[in-house]
Amino acid sequence: MQNKPHVLIYAPWYEPAMDRLDEIAITHHLYKANNKEDFLAEHGPKCSVIGTMHYCPAALMDAVPNLKLILNFGVGYDGVDIPAATKRGITVVNTPDVLNDCVADMALSLILAGRRKVLDADRYIRSGDWEKKGNFEYVHNVHSSKIGILGLGRIGLEIADRCKAFKMDIAYHQRTKRSELNFKYYESLIDMAEDCEILVAIIPGGETTEKIIDERVIEAIGPTGLLVNVARGTVVDNEALARCLKDGRLGGAALDVFPNEPAVPESLLEIDANLILTPHMASATHLTRMKMGMILYDNLMALRDGTPFKTPVN
Amino acid sequence: MQNKPHVLIYAPWYEPAMDRLDEIAITHHLYKANNKEDFLAEHGPKCSVIGTMHYCPAALMDAVPNLKLILNFGVGYDGVDIPAATKRGITVVNTPDVLNDCVADMALSLILAGRRKVLDADRYIRSGDWEKKGNFEYVHNVHSSKIGILGLGRIGLEIADRCKAFKMDIAYHQRTKRSELNFKYYESLIDMAEDCEILVAIIPGGETTEKIIDERVIEAIGPTGLLVNVARGTVVDNEALARCLKDGRLGGAALDVFPNEPAVPESLLEIDANLILTPHMASATHLTRMKMGMILYDNLMALRDGTPFKTPVN
Repeated sequence: MQNKPHVLIYAPWYEPAMDRLDEIAITHHLYKANNKEDFLAEHGPKCSVIGTMHYCPAALMDAVPNLKLILNFGVGYDGVDIPAATKRGITVVNTPDVLNDCVADMALSLILAGRRKVLDADRYIRSGDWEKKGNFEYVHNVHSSKIGILGLGRIGLEIADRCKAFKMDIAYHQRTKRSELNFKYYESLIDMAEDCEILVAIIPGGETTEKIIDERVIEAIGPTGLLVNVARGTVVDNEALARCLKDGRLGGAALDVFPNEPAVPESLLEIDANLILTPHMASATHLTRMKMGMILYDNLMALRDGTPFKTPVN
Repeated sequence: MQNKPHVLIYAPWYEPAMDRLDEIAITHHLYKANNKEDFLAEHGPKCSVIGTMHYCPAALMDAVPNLKLILNFGVGYDGVDIPAATKRGITVVNTPDVLNDCVADMALSLILAGRRKVLDADRYIRSGDWEKKGNFEYVHNVHSSKIGILGLGRIGLEIADRCKAFKMDIAYHQRTKRSELNFKYYESLIDMAEDCEILVAIIPGGETTEKIIDERVIEAIGPTGLLVNVARGTVVDNEALARCLKDGRLGGAALDVFPNEPAVPESLLEIDANLILTPHMASATHLTRMKMGMILYDNLMALRDGTPFKTPVN
């Protein structure tokens, strides 16, 4: 086939999906290069597309002068410099909707495992404590508990639907009330945290939500409460979180995301009981990752064919 | 108050609930005695009630000649010798229904944690592998997966209701079809296991279900499948399970129950990846345990007042 676009792969994604791009494009895998500067100087100029997962700084865009399209594997694009892309006339596309179910499933996995202390219980058996010390501690209910959802977008709604099946009392907070929905709305995050036993974050990252879950909010969730973060690591003040877990001001936490991945704050790694850490895997199932990849594939086809992009964000 | 019945506590339960019995009875705590034989000889004859959790052998009934009532904390009474009790004219009561939600929550906790590999993922971070080796392995979906429920009683139905919210495809097996329900019925357990990605057991224990989940059934669940047991440890051939986990014939398992609790089979303790072990805690939340205890309290009141028992099983 003629006129295959050249794609610079900056941060790789699910390989079986990424490999499909080779059917319709010529890919250059920057992340594999030993000397990235040389690689970029050689291949950057012929590329019209960057493929990435979460991150694309303006400096990289400058190294690809004929750039027309950025393929971002994932929904959140807070690591992509959108203003810089828009200014240069570059379209950014993401992979919405196909991962909603998967991320909601992961949120519930963490809510349930956190609330019922599944990891602590597993360690209790494996250390021999069940035989030595008797029954494991009693925990708190999932069913009939009060949950606050920070960010009731498309994924937040999927989380809410699942929570309904657990007979939970559901509330939410975000900037604007969704009057069409029958869930309790809180104008104030801290008021919601005071009233809830479980707080789950699924708002976009970026500056406006940075450390929105601060020490006061964490304290408000309280000593028998649980914080779950499937949003972005930046939305939680993780140092405050570590302090609150250590001195019992917060009952437990379950985190799928961190501010500087794959690094995890040392202060959190020091804690084992009542803290679940997972490596940003909320959408990381085979099927969902393939679906996400095929959205990028379809956008690349659109570039080649001169048809409208499927999922532009700018 | 006069005429308080004497209660022999054989196996203790949730203390705040057990303590409430002292309002209406005189309790004798056999499990605390150093010399159990002497304790039983001294207190057995004056007791008209035994309180226990899961177990009550016929020999114990014989040591309590004026026995009228056995309070069993829990739904399952396979550890209580029902024929022996019935033969002696002793009523056995259990604590049904109030724990349905809690056990269903625990079943989902194990389904989700098992399917999304939450425990393996947590270990992956804590060992430093995320930074050293890159992304964690991709896992399989919860949503849209096929689940088979072995035993669609009251708890099974609560599990099914929750699975619906995850858009799962739900089937069940037990001796009799429930024609009023809209779930797919399998006459054969092994056929259901073949067709499902997740199998969850919530049938009664006892001889008729012993090792009903045998090596053939476990193999049928398959290398990407998950087995969850919140029923009784006896319903699974745990040695076969260990073999199938070790050689990859089964994808994963999550077990809340074991044949000889609090002992856990060595062959299972040798396995960490893809295996979750919890110490029989499906109903072990503060609120549920108190509700279960109050059912026993109400039955004890009924004995004292000569009114009908609330929850007899024989």
